[in-house]
Amino acid sequence: MTPEEFRAYGRQVVDWIADYYERIESFPVLSQVAPGEIRAALPVDPPEQGEPFADVLADLDRVILPGITHWQHPSFFAFFPANASGPAILGDLLASGLGVQGMLWATSPAATELETHVMDWLATLLGLPGRFRSDGMGGGVIQHTASDAALVALLAALHRTSGGSTEHVGIAAGRYAVYTSGQTHSSVEKACRVAGLGGDALRKIEVDPVTLAARPEHLRELIQRDVAAGITPVLVVASVGATGTGAVDPVRELATIAREHGAWVHVDAAWAGVATVAPELRWLNDGVDLADSYCTNPHKWLLTNFDCDAFWVADRAALIGALSILPEYLRNSATESGAVIDYRDWHVPLGRRFRALKLWAVIRWYGAEGLRAHIRSHVSLAQEFASWVAADERFELVAPHPLALVTFRLRDGDDATRALMERVNASGELYLTHTVVNDNVALRMSIGSPLTERRHVAAAWEKLSGETEGHVSAE
Amino acid sequence: MTPEEFRAYGRQVVDWIADYYERIESFPVLSQVAPGEIRAALPVDPPEQGEPFADVLADLDRVILPGITHWQHPSFFAFFPANASGPAILGDLLASGLGVQGMLWATSPAATELETHVMDWLATLLGLPGRFRSDGMGGGVIQHTASDAALVALLAALHRTSGGSTEHVGIAAGRYAVYTSGQTHSSVEKACRVAGLGGDALRKIEVDPVTLAARPEHLRELIQRDVAAGITPVLVVASVGATGTGAVDPVRELATIAREHGAWVHVDAAWAGVATVAPELRWLNDGVDLADSYCTNPHKWLLTNFDCDAFWVADRAALIGALSILPEYLRNSATESGAVIDYRDWHVPLGRRFRALKLWAVIRWYGAEGLRAHIRSHVSLAQEFASWVAADERFELVAPHPLALVTFRLRDGDDATRALMERVNASGELYLTHTVVNDNVALRMSIGSPLTERRHVAAAWEKLSGETEGHVSAE
Repeated sequence: MTPEEFRAYGRQVVDWIADYYERIESFPVLSQVAPGEIRAALPVDPPEQGEPFADVLADLDRVILPGITHWQHPSFFAFFPANASGPAILGDLLASGLGVQGMLWATSPAATELETHVMDWLATLLGLPGRFRSDGMGGGVIQHTASDAALVALLAALHRTSGGSTEHVGIAAGRYAVYTSGQTHSSVEKACRVAGLGGDALRKIEVDPVTLAARPEHLRELIQRDVAAGITPVLVVASVGATGTGAVDPVRELATIAREHGAWVHVDAAWAGVATVAPELRWLNDGVDLADSYCTNPHKWLLTNFDCDAFWVADRAALIGALSILPEYLRNSATESGAVIDYRDWHVPLGRRFRALKLWAVIRWYGAEGLRAHIRSHVSLAQEFASWVAADERFELVAPHPLALVTFRLRDGDDATRALMERVNASGELYLTHTVVNDNVALRMSIGSPLTERRHVAAAWEKLSGETEGHVSAE
Repeated sequence: MTPEEFRAYGRQVVDWIADYYERIESFPVLSQVAPGEIRAALPVDPPEQGEPFADVLADLDRVILPGITHWQHPSFFAFFPANASGPAILGDLLASGLGVQGMLWATSPAATELETHVMDWLATLLGLPGRFRSDGMGGGVIQHTASDAALVALLAALHRTSGGSTEHVGIAAGRYAVYTSGQTHSSVEKACRVAGLGGDALRKIEVDPVTLAARPEHLRELIQRDVAAGITPVLVVASVGATGTGAVDPVRELATIAREHGAWVHVDAAWAGVATVAPELRWLNDGVDLADSYCTNPHKWLLTNFDCDAFWVADRAALIGALSILPEYLRNSATESGAVIDYRDWHVPLGRRFRALKLWAVIRWYGAEGLRAHIRSHVSLAQEFASWVAADERFELVAPHPLALVTFRLRDGDDATRALMERVNASGELYLTHTVVNDNVALRMSIGSPLTERRHVAAAWEKLSGETEGHVSAE
């Protein structure tokens, strides 16, 4: 494709995307296709000759769009959001255009230095402790996802605990234990599996039945039991905004106990962490000054297209110690000078995309002010939604909701709650998902699309309410 | 950013990229900045108020471009290529615009089904064995990088070898061994570290001093020694186009030995595998029908922007067995029906970008014919370059060069060879990197940029030759 062709087709694609956002409310939020339907509309074999770009765009409308669940739709309330935004899309487009691979500082110094710089910017914006900044022993790096962050946190923890031996001699099964709450993301269990500890090494910290936050006393019990059995506590993962209900663990208390036993403390704030761009939500950072690593995802709720997991460590040497291998073909004078960061040693992959560009574009376009407004609008809408739920006797709130996730259920029980979800999702008017809280099915109203306004949240409530039998009360 | 603003700035970005490709030859290939220079040009603090998008574009020219090593430059001959192309950039832009997260089939059926479909297309294009196709027990998935592919291959191997126990009980250090050649990418050692086997579990298979391919007899010896010591051979990684010199291992012989001992066979063809789009290069696939998994990177040499590692397994159940965890909040009727693929269970991350769109756009725009022409032009240029090296008595070729990587050195020795590399790279006229072959420093002329023409390769040779002392012979 020549630059002139790129100019022409590029405009068409930009227009297609702009048009998509203008008509996004015309689509059912949840795709209505059956398994196999998309593949059946595609040719069995790849083309022998090249095809016009217009055909790709036409098939996008004809074949692909019916199979899209519209994550950017203002009535997408499922899972956690996966924010896209204009500046992020364009920042990522610039990264694609430049096509650089920043595995080493030398392979594009700007890709490394801009990343270090915007990670410091983001630490400032979120009010994170100084120990995570690059001017001391710490530093930030963009990981693919929070699952990858949990994995490398575990590897760094093993490196530190073992004095640098596990990466050479391997894991002795049954020797190490990892702790996190039952509310926490399955990523921690996956990290235990991947890192060779096995899922059995994971201890689930009991949660308070009301706050759903991990109980520090139970962590202490678990650790004491392990230590007595000769098992080494290697990692404690505290959640700030756990996946099920958005529970916030008492990080300071958990970290204090972990540190008494030399365990690494990782704080997974994948969804909620970015909310601390608003100073009134900085209570979420309490205790993070005691953490060894921390992650939050601008690709969830901070307007930066997937993938962009922001991960910081207080001691980058442990991370690099766990992951650095230097084959001859990657040796270069900048690396040997010790004056630069080579981000390939900060994660599992060798190659890396210039992801800092999109985060840079987002922070500059919105400014701190714009980012705060984005978070505040969703928090405010969620509080209003929760007030409607609370006022209706057919429903009940099942967890605290200080941010933009409201977890609730029908008093009629699990079957009715699940059936309600299926009815509203099948309507295509909105999409929300469920979890289980204290053994009961609960729905999750997760507000986070940049396009969501009060009218969308009100319509969602009207739909949920209208699809529910029984008396509407207390208005 | 409103759709109308996006339309306007999107055009500016598209034009910026088209302009970049029109002027790309005006930049030094290797960035000439010193450590810290890029950061020093950036504001210390993030902006409080949002800034105009034009300022981002201006800083791209002012601050970022000087710090770019231009991977798409026609005289970039370093490492392996990281191909970008118009249709890939636009396919990825569409993925950013749609902003869907395809962790589950239900979260965008088209993202999953198009991926399965184009991975079958690619298997067809590369002449891969039918067992990797999705209509049997196997199937393909896009991984982030070949390092990630090596890691999940190891996890699947451990699952199979242990009868599904390692993911629960963990790794017993010293119990398992992994085999690959000393020429093979450090990703295999990294995978051993990450998966808890430790680097010590890696056995390096000796290579033939001429072909630099792994010696099957040595693999047999290593395995026999391990088995006698009670160590289980879990994985053999064969390379097709190893990183140092592009060596091609005898896959059929290695795989035959591995299978006798129940070890999983992974073929890492990250760079070279895509070359088999040209039928005359299908000899590279010999023995792949005996492999359990295989990967090649369209993001290296098949015109598809990073990241796009194409990974196939012959038995997807082993991969899913190693990685699947189903928390309540991800349960859904499509998953429970068993009729769909949930790609979150095929890799470490949970979230995933709609990467199939760019591969689809590339295959459709170029067609099989265009992809073959792309590969053939680089192979042909490399053969011509090698003939120039061979004809000059100051130089010597140090490894076979059947594809587009030519490894060579100065007969004057390591210091002279390294100094030559440093001189030509500092000129900014071209960029190439080095490796060590049979204990000698060698330069790697890796031809793979879509923009590289004969004149660029000829100019590179002229520069290398002109910067070398001594008599120019045999023309």
